Amino acid sequence: MLSKNQIKLIKSLAQKKYRQQLGLFIVEGVKGIQEFLSSDVALHSLYTTESIFEVPKDVLFEISEAELRKISGLKNPNKALAIFYVPMPRAIDKTALIVALDAIRDPGNLGTIIRLCDWYGIKDLICSSNTVDCFNPKVVQATMGSLTRVNVVYLNLDHFISDYKDIVFGTYMHGDNIYTTALPDSGIIVLGNEANGISESISKTVSRRLTIPQFGTHKKTESLNVATATAIVLSEFRRQSIEM
Amino acid sequence: MLSKNQIKLIKSLAQKKYRQQLGLFIVEGVKGIQEFLSSDVALHSLYTTESIFEVPKDVLFEISEAELRKISGLKNPNKALAIFYVPMPRAIDKTALIVALDAIRDPGNLGTIIRLCDWYGIKDLICSSNTVDCFNPKVVQATMGSLTRVNVVYLNLDHFISDYKDIVFGTYMHGDNIYTTALPDSGIIVLGNEANGISESISKTVSRRLTIPQFGTHKKTESLNVATATAIVLSEFRRQSIEM
Repeated sequence: MLSKNQIKLIKSLAQKKYRQQLGLFIVEGVKGIQEFLSSDVALHSLYTTESIFEVPKDVLFEISEAELRKISGLKNPNKALAIFYVPMPRAIDKTALIVALDAIRDPGNLGTIIRLCDWYGIKDLICSSNTVDCFNPKVVQATMGSLTRVNVVYLNLDHFISDYKDIVFGTYMHGDNIYTTALPDSGIIVLGNEANGISESISKTVSRRLTIPQFGTHKKTESLNVATATAIVLSEFRRQSIEM
Repeated sequence: MLSKNQIKLIKSLAQKKYRQQLGLFIVEGVKGIQEFLSSDVALHSLYTTESIFEVPKDVLFEISEAELRKISGLKNPNKALAIFYVPMPRAIDKTALIVALDAIRDPGNLGTIIRLCDWYGIKDLICSSNTVDCFNPKVVQATMGSLTRVNVVYLNLDHFISDYKDIVFGTYMHGDNIYTTALPDSGIIVLGNEANGISESISKTVSRRLTIPQFGTHKKTESLNVATATAIVLSEFRRQSIEM
């Protein structure tokens, strides 16, 4: 049985304001929850329609399908919903390759980028404070567990970059061809907002402008989606690192 | 003023059955419509809240914001909605690099893949008949005009590939490292369903299995999203072609 207070708490965590006030976030679905349970992230409470999780009894609540539908944010809830404590961000390794997001707004894009960082061994993903919250339920859902392995840190991107000593790469419509530019295994790669690209203040700190060249006979005016661009850029950085 | 029949026609085109019966599809938003108007695709009718389009008067209907909201499939309609005639697919160039989709179901993924084909100069995108319809309004929206430049053809993929003479590449969790495999500028690249990957029957025809290697210390069990994988694979094929 779900109490009114439990329902109220779960519903409130759809909003960033309450996630930040309470230091809690939601994970849905068996696979996602198991990834978080086997990570360092601490469990607050778990609501499930089946006894498939080994967690302390005082935080485990068996509920009905109807109750799960009531608290779930998904069209098709998958057996369980858990609340976890928002983990403390870890220290950033400035000697490694870092990805920086400047005002990414779409939860699906952020989720895809976190998965890509995980795939390509990027430990630290730094985000401008106006980037969408990585504990937004849609982002958590889209990361497929990668959020347990990538250190996502929200900070003042202008300040961080102005103190940073290594190369700052940015992706633009016009810049050096990414395929023919030597790419190191350290530095920051900045990716900009979906509509406006990299902001003016951050652009001033970019030391190397990169472009993904177009192929074929039509030259297009559009850019690639930011998550797609991240895939191509990270792929190329890592490809070059194995060749070095 | 919109007639009841116009409203009924527009609403019906949200469904694949009616798009196929009538040979019509919908494009929304000023930019998207302009891309189609300047292509070979023939206009059926255009509904707009502002006189910003130069099209024959008998197919142009000025409507109110309220009317546009009524017929639009978007949360935030953008000044216009147009109906176009579904174009005839063009002949496939078997000597060029071809992308093949095996049962891609998500409209957003298909839209992203069409944009990537456009970016990387892939002229022909062939789709198994159970791949989501490229004239689905969500796909049209996600392609940002690339659908006017990429020839998307639905066909029996098993039959097409069994008659095909060049190399058939497929992406798998285990295969040859894409970064260290020589990739030609012809052949078919098969990408598989979001949940199940490439189907068994198509897998039998794949002559070269490719893998995008993971980096870093964690080895993950998940795969990359299919649109993300397409980005990386096309990037690598084209990068190698400029080096050859």
